[in-house]
Amino acid sequence: MAYSFFSKSRVETFSDGVFAIIITLLVLEIKVPHIEDHHSVNELGRALVSMCPKFFSWTISFLIVCIIWVNHHRIFERISEIDNQLFWLNANLLFWSSFIPFPTALMGDYADNPLAICVFGIILSMSALGFTLIRMYLRKNPSILQVSSSDIVLKGEVRRSFVFGPVLYWIGAAAAWISPIVSFIIYFLIPVYFIIPRKHTAHEN
Amino acid sequence: MAYSFFSKSRVETFSDGVFAIIITLLVLEIKVPHIEDHHSVNELGRALVSMCPKFFSWTISFLIVCIIWVNHHRIFERISEIDNQLFWLNANLLFWSSFIPFPTALMGDYADNPLAICVFGIILSMSALGFTLIRMYLRKNPSILQVSSSDIVLKGEVRRSFVFGPVLYWIGAAAAWISPIVSFIIYFLIPVYFIIPRKHTAHEN
Amino acid sequence: MAYSFFSKSRVETFSDGVFAIIITLLVLEIKVPHIEDHHSVNELGRALVSMCPKFFSWTISFLIVCIIWVNHHRIFERISEIDNQLFWLNANLLFWSSFIPFPTALMGDYADNPLAICVFGIILSMSALGFTLIRMYLRKNPSILQVSSSDIVLKGEVRRSFVFGPVLYWIGAAAAWISPIVSFIIYFLIPVYFIIPRKHTAHEN
Amino acid sequence: MAYSFFSKSRVETFSDGVFAIIITLLVLEIKVPHIEDHHSVNELGRALVSMCPKFFSWTISFLIVCIIWVNHHRIFERISEIDNQLFWLNANLLFWSSFIPFPTALMGDYADNPLAICVFGIILSMSALGFTLIRMYLRKNPSILQVSSSDIVLKGEVRRSFVFGPVLYWIGAAAAWISPIVSFIIYFLIPVYFIIPRKHTAHEN
Repeated sequence: MAYSFFSKSRVETFSDGVFAIIITLLVLEIKVPHIEDHHSVNELGRALVSMCPKFFSWTISFLIVCIIWVNHHRIFERISEIDNQLFWLNANLLFWSSFIPFPTALMGDYADNPLAICVFGIILSMSALGFTLIRMYLRKNPSILQVSSSDIVLKGEVRRSFVFGPVLYWIGAAAAWISPIVSFIIYFLIPVYFIIPRKHTAHEN
Repeated sequence: MAYSFFSKSRVETFSDGVFAIIITLLVLEIKVPHIEDHHSVNELGRALVSMCPKFFSWTISFLIVCIIWVNHHRIFERISEIDNQLFWLNANLLFWSSFIPFPTALMGDYADNPLAICVFGIILSMSALGFTLIRMYLRKNPSILQVSSSDIVLKGEVRRSFVFGPVLYWIGAAAAWISPIVSFIIYFLIPVYFIIPRKHTAHEN
Repeated sequence: MAYSFFSKSRVETFSDGVFAIIITLLVLEIKVPHIEDHHSVNELGRALVSMCPKFFSWTISFLIVCIIWVNHHRIFERISEIDNQLFWLNANLLFWSSFIPFPTALMGDYADNPLAICVFGIILSMSALGFTLIRMYLRKNPSILQVSSSDIVLKGEVRRSFVFGPVLYWIGAAAAWISPIVSFIIYFLIPVYFIIPRKHTAHEN
Repeated sequence: MAYSFFSKSRVETFSDGVFAIIITLLVLEIKVPHIEDHHSVNELGRALVSMCPKFFSWTISFLIVCIIWVNHHRIFERISEIDNQLFWLNANLLFWSSFIPFPTALMGDYADNPLAICVFGIILSMSALGFTLIRMYLRKNPSILQVSSSDIVLKGEVRRSFVFGPVLYWIGAAAAWISPIVSFIIYFLIPVYFIIPRKHTAHEN
């Protein structure tokens, strides 16, 4: 019987470790630019300015991983025990999250290529969808929760987590084919929306 | 006397850290493709499609490291104290596990080279063998376990952990010389076999 | 209501993870030099000597990340609860800190380019400013502190943390345009100043 | 007053994080070999065989970092509180330890260059010396220890930790100028010496 559940603290520690590493690895994809004249301030300056898309895509991903951590924290503090299915739903979330450095670097390198921007949105939508799947599972298994919520509240949570998560990223990904700038703005506004403090239902995605 | 044992929590934290880092480092081996025309959706699309073996070998390794974590969790929750030999059997497991990013990248880069696919299976079989060695040690030293199991149960565990671990990887590694696709399928099915929930003897490898 | 606060231990673990990873990733930017004659001791020796700026900029960043960890430890041991704003002020600190490997590698590669040295100082000043912002927030919300301090003490802390933090880095960054060596010395003395034990008000930045 | 000491658990967590990351990062320096004919088993086989020095130097470093972790664990389980000086002696240990991936890669790339092999030994001797310095500090400040040992015992510990630590690495580093193979053997035997279980005074370095 004891075999059916996982130590919540070890799953949290493992997940926290993964998020901490993702957030820190992101910067490894930003390579020092190569310039001809090592002493030239102008050349280095131009090289750094041309790297702005990389810095911007790094910033977006940093904020998004912070939001993922916050959401993870919010969900797991309400869970009393982790069964086998919840463990693998969490692993699915970590799977897409740990892939984030790749689309981040891709978008940083090809900031004017709609496909690169679209791929970024799709991967991040999968990570956001990971949270929706976890919330759907909690709704179906409310006994796992520490404090039981009404089915209506949980249903609302699942819906909001879907609309303000994957759906927004899909809109951003679709916008890439019309205007990369619009995509960038949407990708940037998604984490900012969650960071700005609100009166109620804060950070429920 | 206190010198003979290790703090279980520090060994767990250390091992969890190593697994979390491995799982996250895997993606670093997937480099952004180089394309000539930065704006070309077609060229980037073709480059990404040609990277499918890398994505697939990353997925397999991600799942396998999750399984390793689960197995580690399952074994250590039954252990009451970590002596010197158990520490080094655990270090042996970490040794082969921390090497996983290399065969993963190798198989991703040379997906049609039997040697690359075979090396992947051999390294992963060593990691699986690490678990079998730990289980053999527990069978010989049942006093380390929190709840004593009968010798017959432990013997069965060792046997299953050997058959569904190293042996399956060796079959996959051997299959590489006949058909890489068959190897890929075997490597993929091994973690999937453990993920699919079963009624009893779940996750005992 | 429980939604307004974060688990202090998980925020600490997450931050510690990020700092531990930053400090260890720094060395990844130091690549093995390429030499023509593999057996040549002279050529390898010259290559290693020419890497001194890299080793030096790595040393500075290592010490600074240690200081950041110490400051983080000092502040968080006085905090009793982490609200939403404090979480994001901490995320801001992690943001700039996790970027440190890039300016470190930049300064290591272009040690005689004033812009590279200046950028290093500016990024590190942002990280130091992150602490000043946290202290300002604590001064405005003394109820978060475990033991209340007088407003005068807190005001003094904010001022010192500003002067001995961002201001010193800005001086170092400005000095880069006159003499890179002077900048290097300032960057090196900032962490050393905090390491040397003092009688009172130790490590308050 | 509370300002004079550090939380032992956070220092341990931070150090464990650094060791876990070092041990896992080592493999990142082993790059997938580049071969002309992707399908050629022979070419890939030769490329992998020629990488043996890399695998061997990775193995040595893995074992040494395990030993460092064991020593760290052994020392810190005896310590009751961490003051400012001990924190920085620990930071010195982490400094040299976190540098290990560089000499490991250097020795792996230039396995027949005496300078590369010598540098490896010198860096590792600095890490071993870090333990000797910590033990010297504990001898001078026995009040930090949980259970007081006699001065004679502590003196013996310091001496042994010096002889079986830095001195052995210096012998290995010196041997590089006569025979790289002898160096390799010495570097390999140092961790093996600590792994082999002994009756008493085990793992005291």
